[in-house]
Amino acid sequence: MTDFKSDRFVVIGVGLIGGSVARALRQSGSVRRIIGVGRGRANLDRALALGVVDEVAADAAAAVRDADIVLLATPVRQNRTLLQNIAASLPPQCVLTDAGSTKGDFVADVHALLPHHLAMTVPGHPIAGAERNGVEAADARLFDGKNVVLTPIPGNDPQALNRVEALWRACGAVVTRMSAERHDRIFSAVSHLPHVLAYVLVHAMAGRTDSGDLFRFAAGGFRDFTRIAGSSPEMWRDISLANRQALLADLNAYRERLGELAGMIEREDSNAIEQVYAIAREARSQWLQGKK
Amino acid sequence: MTDFKSDRFVVIGVGLIGGSVARALRQSGSVRRIIGVGRGRANLDRALALGVVDEVAADAAAAVRDADIVLLATPVRQNRTLLQNIAASLPPQCVLTDAGSTKGDFVADVHALLPHHLAMTVPGHPIAGAERNGVEAADARLFDGKNVVLTPIPGNDPQALNRVEALWRACGAVVTRMSAERHDRIFSAVSHLPHVLAYVLVHAMAGRTDSGDLFRFAAGGFRDFTRIAGSSPEMWRDISLANRQALLADLNAYRERLGELAGMIEREDSNAIEQVYAIAREARSQWLQGKK
Repeated sequence: MTDFKSDRFVVIGVGLIGGSVARALRQSGSVRRIIGVGRGRANLDRALALGVVDEVAADAAAAVRDADIVLLATPVRQNRTLLQNIAASLPPQCVLTDAGSTKGDFVADVHALLPHHLAMTVPGHPIAGAERNGVEAADARLFDGKNVVLTPIPGNDPQALNRVEALWRACGAVVTRMSAERHDRIFSAVSHLPHVLAYVLVHAMAGRTDSGDLFRFAAGGFRDFTRIAGSSPEMWRDISLANRQALLADLNAYRERLGELAGMIEREDSNAIEQVYAIAREARSQWLQGKK
Repeated sequence: MTDFKSDRFVVIGVGLIGGSVARALRQSGSVRRIIGVGRGRANLDRALALGVVDEVAADAAAAVRDADIVLLATPVRQNRTLLQNIAASLPPQCVLTDAGSTKGDFVADVHALLPHHLAMTVPGHPIAGAERNGVEAADARLFDGKNVVLTPIPGNDPQALNRVEALWRACGAVVTRMSAERHDRIFSAVSHLPHVLAYVLVHAMAGRTDSGDLFRFAAGGFRDFTRIAGSSPEMWRDISLANRQALLADLNAYRERLGELAGMIEREDSNAIEQVYAIAREARSQWLQGKK
Protein backbone atom coordinates (compact mmCIF):
# COMPACT_ATOMS: atom_id res chain seq x y z
CA MET A 1 0.00 0.00 0.00
CA THR A 2 1.52 3.31 -1.07
CA ASP A 3 0.81 6.56 0.73
CA PHE A 4 -1.96 8.65 -0.74
CA LYS A 5 -0.97 11.59 -2.97
CA SER A 6 -3.08 13.83 -5.14
CA ASP A 7 -2.40 16.97 -7.13
CA ARG A 8 -6.03 17.85 -7.76
CA PHE A 9 -8.62 16.29 -5.48
CA VAL A 10 -12.18 17.10 -6.47
CA VAL A 11 -14.92 16.61 -3.90
CA ILE A 12 -18.47 16.83 -5.24
CA GLY A 13 -20.74 17.74 -2.33
CA VAL A 14 -18.98 19.65 0.44
CA GLY A 15 -21.10 18.69 3.43
CA LEU A 16 -20.19 16.80 6.59
CA ILE A 17 -18.62 13.82 4.78
CA GLY A 18 -17.02 15.61 1.81
CA GLY A 19 -15.81 18.46 4.02
CA SER A 20 -14.37 16.10 6.62
CA VAL A 21 -12.44 14.13 3.96
CA ALA A 22 -11.08 17.41 2.61
CA ARG A 23 -9.99 18.54 6.07
CA ALA A 24 -8.42 15.15 6.89
CA LEU A 25 -6.48 15.00 3.62
CA ARG A 26 -5.30 18.58 4.03
CA GLN A 27 -4.10 17.79 7.54
CA SER A 28 -2.26 14.71 6.32
CA GLY A 29 -0.40 16.84 3.79
CA SER A 30 -1.22 14.42 1.00
CA VAL A 31 -3.11 16.74 -1.34
CA ARG A 32 -1.83 19.72 -3.25
CA ARG A 33 -5.11 21.32 -4.25
CA ILE A 34 -8.71 20.62 -3.20
CA ILE A 35 -11.62 21.67 -5.41
CA GLY A 36 -15.11 21.71 -3.95
CA VAL A 37 -18.09 21.28 -6.27
CA GLY A 38 -21.69 21.97 -5.36
CA ARG A 39 -24.93 23.62 -6.35
CA GLY A 40 -25.30 25.86 -3.31
CA ARG A 41 -23.11 28.94 -3.70
CA ALA A 42 -23.41 29.98 -0.05
CA ASN A 43 -22.20 26.59 1.17
CA LEU A 44 -19.25 26.63 -1.24
CA ASP A 45 -18.28 30.14 -0.14
CA ARG A 46 -18.40 28.98 3.47
CA ALA A 47 -16.18 25.98 2.61
CA LEU A 48 -13.71 28.36 0.98
CA ALA A 49 -13.78 30.80 3.91
CA LEU A 50 -13.22 27.93 6.36
CA GLY A 51 -10.22 26.74 4.35
CA VAL A 52 -11.83 23.36 3.72
CA VAL A 53 -11.27 23.73 -0.04
CA ASP A 54 -8.91 25.82 -2.19
CA GLU A 55 -11.25 26.44 -5.11
CA VAL A 56 -14.95 26.05 -5.76
CA ALA A 57 -16.92 25.23 -8.87
CA ALA A 58 -20.58 24.83 -9.80
CA ASP A 59 -19.96 22.79 -12.95
CA ALA A 60 -18.94 19.26 -12.05
CA ALA A 61 -18.05 18.29 -15.63
CA ALA A 62 -15.60 21.17 -15.94
CA ALA A 63 -14.16 20.66 -12.46
CA VAL A 64 -13.22 17.00 -12.97
CA ARG A 65 -11.34 17.68 -16.23
CA ASP A 66 -7.94 18.10 -14.53
CA ALA A 67 -8.64 15.94 -11.49
CA ASP A 68 -6.62 12.88 -10.54
CA ILE A 69 -9.19 11.70 -8.00
CA VAL A 70 -12.87 12.54 -7.53
CA LEU A 71 -15.05 11.83 -4.50
CA LEU A 72 -18.85 11.85 -4.88
CA ALA A 73 -20.24 12.89 -1.49
CA THR A 74 -23.67 14.19 -2.48
CA PRO A 75 -27.06 12.74 -1.46
CA VAL A 76 -27.21 9.42 -3.31
CA ARG A 77 -30.28 10.35 -5.36
CA GLN A 78 -28.06 12.87 -7.22
CA ASN A 79 -25.56 10.16 -8.22
CA ARG A 80 -27.14 9.26 -11.54
CA THR A 81 -27.36 12.82 -12.81
CA LEU A 82 -23.82 13.52 -11.66
CA LEU A 83 -22.41 10.37 -13.26
CA GLN A 84 -24.10 11.39 -16.53
CA ASN A 85 -22.71 14.91 -16.23
CA ILE A 86 -19.10 13.92 -15.67
CA ALA A 87 -19.05 10.78 -17.87
CA ALA A 88 -17.49 12.47 -20.90
CA SER A 89 -14.99 14.67 -19.07
CA LEU A 90 -13.37 12.30 -16.55
CA PRO A 91 -9.70 11.90 -17.52
CA PRO A 92 -8.93 8.21 -18.24
CA GLN A 93 -6.50 7.87 -15.33
CA CYS A 94 -8.71 9.74 -12.85
CA VAL A 95 -9.96 7.61 -9.96
CA LEU A 96 -13.63 8.02 -9.04
CA THR A 97 -15.07 6.96 -5.70
CA ASP A 98 -18.18 7.67 -3.65
CA ALA A 99 -19.39 7.74 -0.06
CA GLY A 100 -22.95 6.47 -0.35
CA SER A 101 -24.66 4.27 2.27
CA THR A 102 -25.85 1.68 -0.28
CA LYS A 103 -23.57 0.08 -2.82
CA GLY A 104 -25.47 -2.26 -5.15
CA ASP A 105 -27.35 0.65 -6.70
CA PHE A 106 -24.14 2.62 -7.24
CA VAL A 107 -22.46 -0.36 -8.92
CA ALA A 108 -25.48 -0.71 -11.23
CA ASP A 109 -25.35 3.00 -12.08
CA VAL A 110 -21.64 2.78 -12.88
CA HIS A 111 -22.26 -0.18 -15.19
CA ALA A 112 -25.05 1.71 -16.93
CA LEU A 113 -23.55 5.18 -17.13
CA LEU A 114 -19.77 4.84 -16.91
CA PRO A 115 -18.94 1.52 -18.60
CA HIS A 116 -15.79 3.04 -20.12
CA HIS A 117 -14.59 4.23 -16.72
CA LEU A 118 -15.49 1.13 -14.75
CA ALA A 119 -11.90 0.07 -14.06
CA MET A 120 -11.18 3.35 -12.28
CA THR A 121 -14.44 3.61 -10.30
CA VAL A 122 -14.23 2.24 -6.74
CA PRO A 123 -17.41 2.33 -4.60
CA GLY A 124 -16.96 3.14 -0.92
CA HIS A 125 -18.93 3.72 2.28
CA PRO A 126 -17.48 5.46 5.33
CA ILE A 127 -19.30 4.35 8.50
CA ALA A 128 -19.23 7.68 10.26
CA GLY A 129 -21.60 10.50 10.94
CA ALA A 130 -22.33 13.21 13.43
CA GLU A 131 -25.35 14.88 14.97
CA ARG A 132 -24.66 18.00 12.92
CA ASN A 133 -24.61 18.31 9.14
CA GLY A 134 -23.01 20.59 6.60
CA VAL A 135 -19.53 21.93 6.02
CA GLU A 136 -19.58 23.78 9.34
CA ALA A 137 -19.49 20.39 11.05
CA ALA A 138 -16.63 19.06 8.89
CA ASP A 139 -13.97 17.53 11.10
CA ALA A 140 -10.53 16.23 10.11
CA ARG A 141 -10.88 13.47 12.74
CA LEU A 142 -14.37 12.28 11.79
CA PHE A 143 -13.02 9.04 10.28
CA ASP A 144 -10.37 8.36 12.88
CA GLY A 145 -10.55 4.65 13.73
CA LYS A 146 -13.88 4.35 11.88
CA ASN A 147 -14.71 1.60 9.37
CA VAL A 148 -14.76 2.34 5.66
CA VAL A 149 -16.05 -0.40 3.38
CA LEU A 150 -14.91 -0.57 -0.24
CA THR A 151 -16.93 -2.77 -2.59
CA PRO A 152 -14.70 -3.29 -5.63
CA ILE A 153 -16.38 -3.81 -8.98
CA PRO A 154 -15.07 -6.86 -10.89
CA GLY A 155 -12.72 -5.29 -13.41
CA ASN A 156 -11.48 -2.58 -11.06
CA ASP A 157 -7.87 -1.54 -11.63
CA PRO A 158 -5.87 -2.78 -8.59
CA GLN A 159 -3.98 0.51 -8.43
CA ALA A 160 -7.21 2.52 -8.42
CA LEU A 161 -8.42 0.31 -5.57
CA ASN A 162 -5.19 0.80 -3.63
CA ARG A 163 -5.39 4.52 -4.16
CA VAL A 164 -8.90 4.78 -2.69
CA GLU A 165 -7.83 2.59 0.19
CA ALA A 166 -4.83 4.86 0.77
CA LEU A 167 -7.10 7.92 0.69
CA TRP A 168 -9.22 6.58 3.54
CA ARG A 169 -6.19 5.40 5.50
CA ALA A 170 -4.82 8.93 5.20
CA CYS A 171 -8.09 10.00 6.88
CA GLY A 172 -7.37 7.59 9.74
CA ALA A 173 -9.98 5.00 8.76
CA VAL A 174 -9.88 1.19 8.92
CA VAL A 175 -10.60 -0.10 5.41
CA THR A 176 -12.35 -3.38 4.58
CA ARG A 177 -13.13 -4.75 1.13
CA MET A 178 -16.19 -6.86 0.38
CA SER A 179 -18.79 -7.38 -2.32
CA ALA A 180 -21.56 -4.82 -2.76
CA GLU A 181 -24.10 -7.57 -2.07
CA ARG A 182 -22.50 -8.45 1.27
CA HIS A 183 -22.23 -4.77 2.19
CA ASP A 184 -25.90 -4.14 1.48
CA ARG A 185 -26.96 -7.22 3.43
CA ILE A 186 -24.93 -6.17 6.48
CA PHE A 187 -26.10 -2.57 6.53
CA SER A 188 -29.68 -3.51 5.94
CA ALA A 189 -29.58 -5.47 9.20
CA VAL A 190 -27.50 -3.17 11.41
CA SER A 191 -28.59 0.22 10.13
CA HIS A 192 -31.40 0.39 7.59
CA LEU A 193 -33.82 -1.93 9.42
CA PRO A 194 -33.29 -0.20 12.80
CA HIS A 195 -33.99 3.19 11.18
CA VAL A 196 -37.22 1.87 9.69
CA LEU A 197 -38.25 0.33 13.03
CA ALA A 198 -37.70 3.60 14.86
CA TYR A 199 -39.47 5.71 12.24
CA VAL A 200 -42.49 3.39 12.14
CA LEU A 201 -42.77 3.33 15.94
CA VAL A 202 -42.75 7.11 16.32
CA HIS A 203 -45.05 7.55 13.32
CA ALA A 204 -47.55 5.10 14.83
CA MET A 205 -47.40 6.86 18.20
CA ALA A 206 -47.92 10.25 16.58
CA GLY A 207 -51.06 8.96 14.85
CA ARG A 208 -52.76 7.58 17.96
CA THR A 209 -55.61 9.46 19.60
CA ASP A 210 -53.71 9.19 22.91
CA SER A 211 -50.42 10.47 21.48
CA GLY A 212 -50.37 13.39 23.94
CA ASP A 213 -50.40 10.87 26.80
CA LEU A 214 -47.72 8.78 25.16
CA PHE A 215 -45.21 11.55 24.52
CA ARG A 216 -45.83 12.99 27.95
CA PHE A 217 -44.60 9.83 29.67
CA ALA A 218 -41.93 8.70 27.21
CA ALA A 219 -38.55 8.82 28.94
CA GLY A 220 -34.85 8.25 28.42
CA GLY A 221 -35.06 4.71 27.04
CA PHE A 222 -37.50 5.91 24.39
CA ARG A 223 -35.26 8.87 23.55
CA ASP A 224 -32.26 6.61 22.83
CA PHE A 225 -34.34 4.00 21.00
CA THR A 226 -35.74 6.64 18.64
CA ARG A 227 -32.63 8.78 18.22
CA ILE A 228 -32.19 7.46 14.66
CA ALA A 229 -35.75 8.59 13.83
CA GLY A 230 -34.29 12.11 14.01
CA SER A 231 -32.34 11.41 10.78
CA SER A 232 -33.12 13.01 7.42
CA PRO A 233 -36.38 11.61 5.94
CA GLU A 234 -35.17 12.28 2.38
CA MET A 235 -31.90 10.45 2.89
CA TRP A 236 -33.58 7.47 4.52
CA ARG A 237 -36.32 7.32 1.91
CA ASP A 238 -33.53 7.04 -0.67
CA ILE A 239 -31.66 4.39 1.31
CA SER A 240 -34.87 2.40 1.86
CA LEU A 241 -35.46 2.30 -1.87
CA ALA A 242 -31.84 1.86 -2.95
CA ASN A 243 -31.44 -1.19 -0.70
CA ARG A 244 -35.03 -2.39 -0.90
CA GLN A 245 -34.25 -6.02 -1.71
CA ALA A 246 -32.18 -6.70 1.42
CA LEU A 247 -34.33 -4.40 3.53
CA LEU A 248 -37.59 -6.09 2.54
CA ALA A 249 -36.12 -9.50 3.36
CA ASP A 250 -35.02 -8.22 6.78
CA LEU A 251 -38.33 -6.45 7.42
CA ASN A 252 -40.33 -9.56 6.67
CA ALA A 253 -38.06 -11.81 8.71
CA TYR A 254 -38.31 -9.35 11.59
CA ARG A 255 -42.10 -9.30 11.42
CA GLU A 256 -42.06 -13.08 11.69
CA ARG A 257 -39.77 -12.95 14.71
CA LEU A 258 -42.10 -10.45 16.35
CA GLY A 259 -44.97 -12.82 15.63
CA GLU A 260 -43.08 -15.64 17.35
CA LEU A 261 -42.48 -13.47 20.41
CA ALA A 262 -46.16 -12.46 20.43
CA GLY A 263 -47.01 -16.17 20.44
CA MET A 264 -44.76 -16.76 23.46
CA ILE A 265 -46.43 -13.91 25.33
CA GLU A 266 -49.89 -15.15 24.34
CA ARG A 267 -49.29 -18.65 25.69
CA GLU A 268 -47.34 -17.18 28.64
CA ASP A 269 -44.20 -19.15 27.81
CA SER A 270 -42.08 -17.49 30.44
CA ASN A 271 -38.92 -19.51 29.71
CA ALA A 272 -38.98 -18.88 25.98
CA ILE A 273 -39.46 -15.13 26.46
CA GLU A 274 -36.65 -14.92 28.97
CA GLN A 275 -34.36 -16.84 26.64
CA VAL A 276 -34.94 -14.41 23.77
CA TYR A 277 -34.20 -11.45 26.03
CA ALA A 278 -31.19 -13.11 27.68
CA ILE A 279 -29.59 -14.12 24.38
CA ALA A 280 -30.08 -10.58 23.10
CA ARG A 281 -28.57 -8.98 26.18
CA GLU A 282 -25.62 -11.34 26.15
CA ALA A 283 -24.92 -10.76 22.43
CA ARG A 284 -25.08 -7.00 22.92
CA SER A 285 -22.82 -7.15 25.94
CA GLN A 286 -20.25 -9.26 24.04
CA TRP A 287 -20.41 -6.77 21.19
CA LEU A 288 -19.83 -3.79 23.51
CA GLN A 289 -16.87 -5.57 25.09
CA GLY A 290 -15.37 -6.16 21.65
CA LYS A 291 -15.85 -2.48 20.82
CA LYS A 292 -13.86 -1.34 23.85
CA MET B 1 -51.69 18.34 50.19
CA THR B 2 -49.91 17.96 53.53
CA ASP B 3 -46.19 17.39 53.83
CA PHE B 4 -45.12 13.80 54.14
CA LYS B 5 -44.32 12.49 57.61
CA SER B 6 -43.62 8.97 58.79
CA ASP B 7 -42.46 7.49 62.07
CA ARG B 8 -41.66 4.04 60.73
CA PHE B 9 -41.17 3.72 56.98
CA VAL B 10 -40.66 0.14 55.83
CA VAL B 11 -39.11 -0.43 52.40
CA ILE B 12 -39.27 -4.01 51.13
CA GLY B 13 -36.50 -4.46 48.57
CA VAL B 14 -33.54 -2.12 49.12
CA GLY B 15 -32.19 -1.84 45.56
CA LEU B 16 -31.87 1.17 43.29
CA ILE B 17 -35.51 2.28 43.66
CA GLY B 18 -36.12 1.36 47.30
CA GLY B 19 -32.70 2.69 48.34
CA SER B 20 -33.18 5.94 46.45
CA VAL B 21 -36.57 6.56 48.06
CA ALA B 22 -35.01 5.91 51.47
CA ARG B 23 -32.18 8.33 50.77
CA ALA B 24 -34.52 11.00 49.39
CA LEU B 25 -36.91 10.77 52.37
CA ARG B 26 -34.03 10.84 54.81
CA GLN B 27 -32.65 13.96 53.11
CA SER B 28 -36.06 15.65 53.24
CA GLY B 29 -36.16 15.08 56.99
CA SER B 30 -39.65 13.62 56.75
CA VAL B 31 -39.01 10.17 58.21
CA ARG B 32 -38.01 9.24 61.73
CA ARG B 33 -36.92 5.66 61.16
CA ILE B 34 -36.36 3.61 57.99
CA ILE B 35 -36.49 -0.17 58.05
CA GLY B 36 -35.10 -2.13 55.10
CA VAL B 37 -36.47 -5.60 54.37
CA GLY B 38 -34.91 -8.12 52.02
CA ARG B 39 -33.79 -11.68 51.53
CA GLY B 40 -30.14 -10.95 50.81
CA ARG B 41 -28.25 -10.37 54.04
CA ALA B 42 -25.18 -8.91 52.33
CA ASN B 43 -27.25 -6.28 50.54
CA LEU B 44 -29.07 -5.32 53.73
CA ASP B 45 -25.78 -5.01 55.62
CA ARG B 46 -24.49 -2.77 52.86
CA ALA B 47 -27.65 -0.62 53.05
CA LEU B 48 -27.10 -0.28 56.79
CA ALA B 49 -23.41 0.55 56.40
CA LEU B 50 -24.23 3.18 53.77
CA GLY B 51 -26.78 4.77 56.10
CA VAL B 52 -29.61 4.16 53.64
CA VAL B 53 -31.67 2.43 56.32
CA ASP B 54 -31.65 2.48 60.15
CA GLU B 55 -32.64 -1.14 60.70
CA VAL B 56 -32.85 -4.26 58.61
CA ALA B 57 -35.13 -7.28 58.74
CA ALA B 58 -35.51 -10.53 56.82
CA ASP B 59 -39.12 -11.17 57.88
CA ALA B 60 -41.48 -8.82 56.05
CA ALA B 61 -44.52 -9.80 58.12
CA ALA B 62 -42.77 -8.92 61.37
CA ALA B 63 -41.25 -5.74 59.97
CA VAL B 64 -44.55 -4.19 58.85
CA ARG B 65 -46.24 -4.73 62.21
CA ASP B 66 -45.33 -1.26 63.54
CA ALA B 67 -45.08 0.51 60.19
CA ASP B 68 -47.17 3.51 59.23
CA ILE B 69 -46.21 3.26 55.56
CA VAL B 70 -44.78 0.38 53.50
CA LEU B 71 -43.20 0.57 50.04
CA LEU B 72 -42.91 -2.62 47.95
CA ALA B 73 -39.85 -2.15 45.72
CA THR B 74 -38.99 -5.76 44.91
CA PRO B 75 -39.05 -7.40 41.46
CA VAL B 76 -42.76 -7.57 40.61
CA ARG B 77 -42.89 -11.37 40.44
CA GLN B 78 -42.34 -11.38 44.24
CA ASN B 79 -45.38 -9.19 44.85
CA ARG B 80 -47.91 -11.98 45.29
CA THR B 81 -45.85 -13.90 47.82
CA LEU B 82 -45.09 -10.72 49.70
CA LEU B 83 -48.70 -9.57 49.76
CA GLN B 84 -49.66 -12.99 51.15
CA ASN B 85 -46.90 -12.78 53.76
CA ILE B 86 -47.83 -9.36 55.08
CA ALA B 87 -51.63 -9.60 54.65
CA ALA B 88 -52.34 -10.57 58.25
CA SER B 89 -49.86 -8.25 59.95
CA LEU B 90 -50.39 -4.91 58.20
CA PRO B 91 -51.79 -2.46 60.79
CA PRO B 92 -55.22 -1.17 59.66
CA GLN B 93 -54.03 2.45 59.29
CA CYS B 94 -50.75 1.54 57.55
CA VAL B 95 -50.51 2.79 53.95
CA LEU B 96 -49.14 0.31 51.42
CA THR B 97 -47.75 1.32 48.05
CA ASP B 98 -45.53 -0.19 45.37
CA ALA B 99 -43.11 0.84 42.60
CA GLY B 100 -43.82 -1.74 39.91
CA SER B 101 -43.72 -0.99 36.17
CA THR B 102 -47.14 -2.54 35.49
CA LYS B 103 -50.25 -1.69 37.45
CA GLY B 104 -53.23 -3.77 36.31
CA ASP B 105 -51.65 -6.93 37.67
CA PHE B 106 -50.88 -5.30 41.02
CA VAL B 107 -54.45 -4.04 41.35
CA ALA B 108 -55.72 -7.55 40.63
CA ASP B 109 -53.36 -9.02 43.24
CA VAL B 110 -54.51 -6.50 45.84
CA HIS B 111 -58.15 -7.37 45.17
CA ALA B 112 -57.36 -11.07 45.50
CA LEU B 113 -54.96 -11.05 48.43
CA LEU B 114 -55.59 -7.88 50.42
CA PRO B 115 -59.32 -7.16 50.07
CA HIS B 116 -59.49 -6.02 53.71
CA HIS B 117 -56.64 -3.53 53.14
CA LEU B 118 -57.76 -2.24 49.76
CA ALA B 119 -58.65 1.26 50.97
CA MET B 120 -55.10 1.82 52.22
CA THR B 121 -53.24 0.30 49.23
CA VAL B 122 -52.18 2.82 46.57
CA PRO B 123 -50.39 1.48 43.45
CA GLY B 124 -47.55 3.62 42.06
CA HIS B 125 -44.90 3.66 39.36
CA PRO B 126 -41.87 5.95 39.46
CA ILE B 127 -40.56 6.60 35.91
CA ALA B 128 -36.90 6.63 36.80
CA GLY B 129 -33.97 4.32 36.50
CA ALA B 130 -30.24 4.31 36.10
CA GLU B 131 -27.60 2.31 34.29
CA ARG B 132 -26.51 0.79 37.59
CA ASN B 133 -28.55 -1.33 39.95
CA GLY B 134 -28.55 -2.15 43.64
CA VAL B 135 -28.33 -0.16 46.83
CA GLU B 136 -24.83 1.09 45.92
CA ALA B 137 -26.44 3.11 43.12
CA ALA B 138 -29.17 4.54 45.39
CA ASP B 139 -29.38 8.29 44.92
CA ALA B 140 -31.45 10.82 46.85
CA ARG B 141 -31.96 12.82 43.63
CA LEU B 142 -33.00 9.91 41.38
CA PHE B 143 -36.63 11.10 41.30
CA ASP B 144 -35.94 14.80 41.06
CA GLY B 145 -38.28 16.21 38.40
CA LYS B 146 -39.22 12.69 37.28
CA ASN B 147 -42.78 11.48 36.72
CA VAL B 148 -44.46 9.19 39.21
CA VAL B 149 -47.82 7.74 38.22
CA LEU B 150 -50.30 6.68 40.90
CA THR B 151 -53.19 4.46 39.80
CA PRO B 152 -55.75 4.69 42.60
CA ILE B 153 -57.99 1.71 43.21
CA PRO B 154 -61.69 2.57 43.43
CA GLY B 155 -62.32 2.56 47.17
CA ASN B 156 -58.93 4.02 48.08
CA ASP B 157 -58.95 6.22 51.17
CA PRO B 158 -58.33 9.81 49.98
CA GLN B 159 -55.92 10.40 52.84
CA ALA B 160 -53.92 7.29 51.95
CA LEU B 161 -53.74 8.55 48.38
CA ASN B 162 -52.61 12.01 49.51
CA ARG B 163 -50.00 10.47 51.74
CA VAL B 164 -48.43 8.45 48.91
CA GLU B 165 -48.50 11.50 46.70
CA ALA B 166 -46.78 13.50 49.45
CA LEU B 167 -44.15 10.77 49.78
CA TRP B 168 -43.17 11.10 46.12
CA ARG B 169 -43.29 14.88 46.21
CA ALA B 170 -40.90 14.74 49.14
CA CYS B 171 -38.60 12.80 46.77
CA GLY B 172 -38.84 15.65 44.25
CA ALA B 173 -41.11 13.83 41.79
CA VAL B 174 -44.00 15.13 39.68
CA VAL B 175 -47.06 13.02 40.55
CA THR B 176 -49.90 12.17 38.15
CA ARG B 177 -52.98 10.08 38.90
CA MET B 178 -54.68 7.90 36.31
CA SER B 179 -56.40 4.54 35.99
CA ALA B 180 -54.29 1.37 35.96
CA GLU B 181 -55.68 0.58 32.50
CA ARG B 182 -54.56 3.93 31.09
CA HIS B 183 -51.16 3.55 32.74
CA ASP B 184 -50.61 0.11 31.26
CA ARG B 185 -51.69 1.26 27.80
CA ILE B 186 -49.28 4.22 27.86
CA PHE B 187 -46.28 2.27 29.11
CA SER B 188 -46.91 -0.59 26.75
CA ALA B 189 -46.46 1.87 23.87
CA VAL B 190 -43.59 4.03 25.12
CA SER B 191 -41.58 1.47 27.05
CA HIS B 192 -42.64 -2.18 26.90
CA LEU B 193 -43.02 -2.38 23.11
CA PRO B 194 -39.66 -0.63 22.43
CA HIS B 195 -37.92 -3.06 24.80
CA VAL B 196 -39.45 -6.02 22.97
CA LEU B 197 -38.48 -4.55 19.58
CA ALA B 198 -34.88 -4.07 20.65
CA TYR B 199 -34.60 -7.52 22.23
CA VAL B 200 -36.08 -9.25 19.18
CA LEU B 201 -33.77 -7.36 16.80
CA VAL B 202 -30.58 -8.27 18.66
CA HIS B 203 -31.77 -11.83 19.22
CA ALA B 204 -32.44 -12.24 15.48
CA MET B 205 -29.02 -10.80 14.61
CA ALA B 206 -27.28 -13.11 17.07
CA GLY B 207 -28.94 -16.11 15.45
CA ARG B 208 -27.90 -15.32 11.88
CA THR B 209 -25.05 -17.21 10.23
CA ASP B 210 -23.48 -13.84 9.34
CA SER B 211 -23.80 -12.43 12.87
CA GLY B 212 -20.02 -11.89 13.08
CA ASP B 213 -20.24 -9.60 10.05
CA LEU B 214 -23.23 -7.79 11.49
CA PHE B 215 -21.78 -7.02 14.89
CA ARG B 216 -18.46 -6.03 13.34
CA PHE B 217 -20.05 -3.19 11.38
CA ALA B 218 -22.79 -2.12 13.79
CA ALA B 219 -22.08 1.43 14.94
CA GLY B 220 -23.33 4.21 17.18
CA GLY B 221 -26.92 4.33 15.90
CA PHE B 222 -27.28 0.62 16.59
CA ARG B 223 -25.78 1.04 20.06
CA ASP B 224 -28.37 3.66 21.07
CA PHE B 225 -31.24 1.80 19.41
CA THR B 226 -30.44 -1.37 21.35
CA ARG B 227 -29.44 0.19 24.67
CA ILE B 228 -32.70 -1.03 26.24
CA ALA B 229 -31.86 -4.60 25.17
CA GLY B 230 -29.18 -4.40 27.88
CA SER B 231 -31.94 -4.44 30.54
CA SER B 232 -32.64 -7.37 32.86
CA PRO B 233 -34.21 -10.30 30.96
CA GLU B 234 -36.01 -11.52 34.10
CA MET B 235 -37.55 -8.13 34.80
CA TRP B 236 -38.67 -7.66 31.20
CA ARG B 237 -40.03 -11.18 30.95
CA ASP B 238 -42.19 -10.34 33.97
CA ILE B 239 -43.30 -7.00 32.53
CA SER B 240 -44.09 -8.62 29.16
CA LEU B 241 -46.37 -11.11 30.87
CA ALA B 242 -47.84 -8.74 33.47
CA ASN B 243 -48.93 -6.29 30.76
CA ARG B 244 -49.53 -8.83 28.03
CA GLN B 245 -52.95 -7.60 26.95
CA ALA B 246 -51.84 -4.07 26.07
CA LEU B 247 -48.47 -5.27 24.80
CA LEU B 248 -49.97 -7.86 22.45
CA ALA B 249 -52.33 -5.24 21.02
CA ASP B 250 -49.39 -2.90 20.42
CA LEU B 251 -47.18 -5.66 19.02
CA ASN B 252 -49.82 -6.71 16.52
CA ALA B 253 -50.63 -3.15 15.50
CA TYR B 254 -46.91 -2.48 15.05
CA ARG B 255 -46.47 -5.56 12.86
CA GLU B 256 -49.28 -4.27 10.67
CA ARG B 257 -47.64 -0.86 10.41
CA LEU B 258 -44.37 -2.53 9.41
CA GLY B 259 -46.27 -4.46 6.77
CA GLU B 260 -47.69 -1.20 5.40
CA LEU B 261 -44.21 0.31 5.21
CA ALA B 262 -42.91 -2.85 3.50
CA GLY B 263 -45.70 -2.43 0.95
CA MET B 264 -44.62 1.16 0.27
CA ILE B 265 -41.03 0.04 -0.27
CA GLU B 266 -42.16 -2.83 -2.47
CA ARG B 267 -44.14 -0.58 -4.79
CA GLU B 268 -41.46 2.14 -4.49
CA ASP B 269 -43.91 4.71 -3.19
CA SER B 270 -41.29 7.32 -2.49
CA ASN B 271 -43.73 9.99 -1.24
CA ALA B 272 -45.50 7.69 1.20
CA ILE B 273 -42.20 6.48 2.68
CA GLU B 274 -40.88 10.00 3.08
CA GLN B 275 -44.10 11.07 4.75
CA VAL B 276 -43.89 8.32 7.38
CA TYR B 277 -40.29 9.26 8.16
CA ALA B 278 -40.96 13.02 8.12
CA ILE B 279 -43.98 12.76 10.44
CA ALA B 280 -41.92 10.62 12.81
CA ARG B 281 -38.99 13.03 12.84
CA GLU B 282 -41.25 16.01 13.38
CA ALA B 283 -43.14 14.33 16.24
CA ARG B 284 -39.88 13.37 17.94
CA SER B 285 -38.45 16.83 17.49
CA GLN B 286 -41.59 18.42 18.99
CA TRP B 287 -41.35 16.00 21.89
CA LEU B 288 -37.70 16.83 22.55
CA GLN B 289 -38.51 20.54 22.47
CA GLY B 290 -41.25 20.01 25.02
CA LYS B 291 -38.81 18.11 27.23
CA LYS B 292 -36.32 20.98 27.30
